[in-house]
Amino acid sequence: VNDRHLSTQYDVELSGVCARVLEMGGLVETQVAAAVRALVRLDQDLASEVLAAERRVNEMELEVDRELSSIIVRRQPAARDLRLLLAISRIGANLERAGDEAARMARIVTRQLAPRSSAPALPAPVDLGFEAGLATAQLRKALDAFARMAPQAALDVLTQDDRIDAEFEGLLRRLITYMMEDPRAISGSIDLVFAAKSIERIGDHAKNIAEGVIYIVEGTDVRHRPIAAPDPRTR
Amino acid sequence: VNDRHLSTQYDVELSGVCARVLEMGGLVETQVAAAVRALVRLDQDLASEVLAAERRVNEMELEVDRELSSIIVRRQPAARDLRLLLAISRIGANLERAGDEAARMARIVTRQLAPRSSAPALPAPVDLGFEAGLATAQLRKALDAFARMAPQAALDVLTQDDRIDAEFEGLLRRLITYMMEDPRAISGSIDLVFAAKSIERIGDHAKNIAEGVIYIVEGTDVRHRPIAAPDPRTR
Repeated sequence: VNDRHLSTQYDVELSGVCARVLEMGGLVETQVAAAVRALVRLDQDLASEVLAAERRVNEMELEVDRELSSIIVRRQPAARDLRLLLAISRIGANLERAGDEAARMARIVTRQLAPRSSAPALPAPVDLGFEAGLATAQLRKALDAFARMAPQAALDVLTQDDRIDAEFEGLLRRLITYMMEDPRAISGSIDLVFAAKSIERIGDHAKNIAEGVIYIVEGTDVRHRPIAAPDPRTR
Repeated sequence: VNDRHLSTQYDVELSGVCARVLEMGGLVETQVAAAVRALVRLDQDLASEVLAAERRVNEMELEVDRELSSIIVRRQPAARDLRLLLAISRIGANLERAGDEAARMARIVTRQLAPRSSAPALPAPVDLGFEAGLATAQLRKALDAFARMAPQAALDVLTQDDRIDAEFEGLLRRLITYMMEDPRAISGSIDLVFAAKSIERIGDHAKNIAEGVIYIVEGTDVRHRPIAAPDPRTR
């Protein structure tokens, strides 16, 4: 990850756990994209794959934490290295929670496919794909910032989170209009509201991961701090 | 917290950080109850207090993490003690996220009070109070299990989470029926759907805290594991 450590073996262990987190991140990205696809197509097989991937992601989070604990106990790190190790653990936790949101979407597919009397099936006239594309792009950028330990790239993720929020608000307004026009569609559409919300939360996890990268590199805990307006040239 | 440590000074530090977590937990409990009250009464002043409390909870989480890191660096704990320290950090993180959900509810009050054309004001004919009461009770029980390091009490929290889920599902069905009967109420009711969801998630955080207690005491990581059915006599 960086070159300030004297111990080569420590570097190897650290790279190993970072590689594991990135592998976990790749799995979550795929899982999120698959969950949205399963929802749009009401594809139960794909939804089942998403749920299987969630179990794997959960296991990987536990593995990452076990490896980090093992490093801490054996290496007895100084404050700066400990900060790095704990931030990696938090990044893993955020990936796991993003995976949870994908699983929530997958469970909506099962619910939609269950026989019901009052709710027409999807699709409603809203497209979750754009919001999902923004969220997976944010996740990818945050993981890339982590892989390169690039705080500027991480800062970009923070400043772009409001695009997902705006897209969520737009989807919500369209869904409400749709429900008002056809009250029979309410029950089915509520599930889409939850799915849109899950995608927004995946964006929040990407933001948390980006905050973790900034914390690792700059030692500044930007959790719970407002972020300055972005440089307009970078938008 | 327990008596297996030889170092008295370490015990004092550990008790200090646990007390801080419990103080944080008490603040979050109050915050959740106030958020629901603010929502039911559409009380903007109370909602503002909830948002102020969220900032304090966020600060306390950072303080807890700083104290834990300082203990790890100075004490160089063995695996068992490290497990305890990291589990305490996760409990703090779950309290902070429960506080986030309370803040989400408080922001709904502001939104409901903003002038709007199409949405009738609350209250809709659903009462979030029962679900909120279940969630705050779960939070209190989980914190009590933490204070006493009582795994059986923690297990009770895990087995009772499905009561909140059932109450959430019931509220959702009633809100959908209400929206179908009066489509003008959809926009306002969606906010109640989100509030009910926030309360359900607070219950999830209580569950995560209880899992942390079991992990600390028994060394068993019950994250992501299905919990056995409860003893019927304890229900």
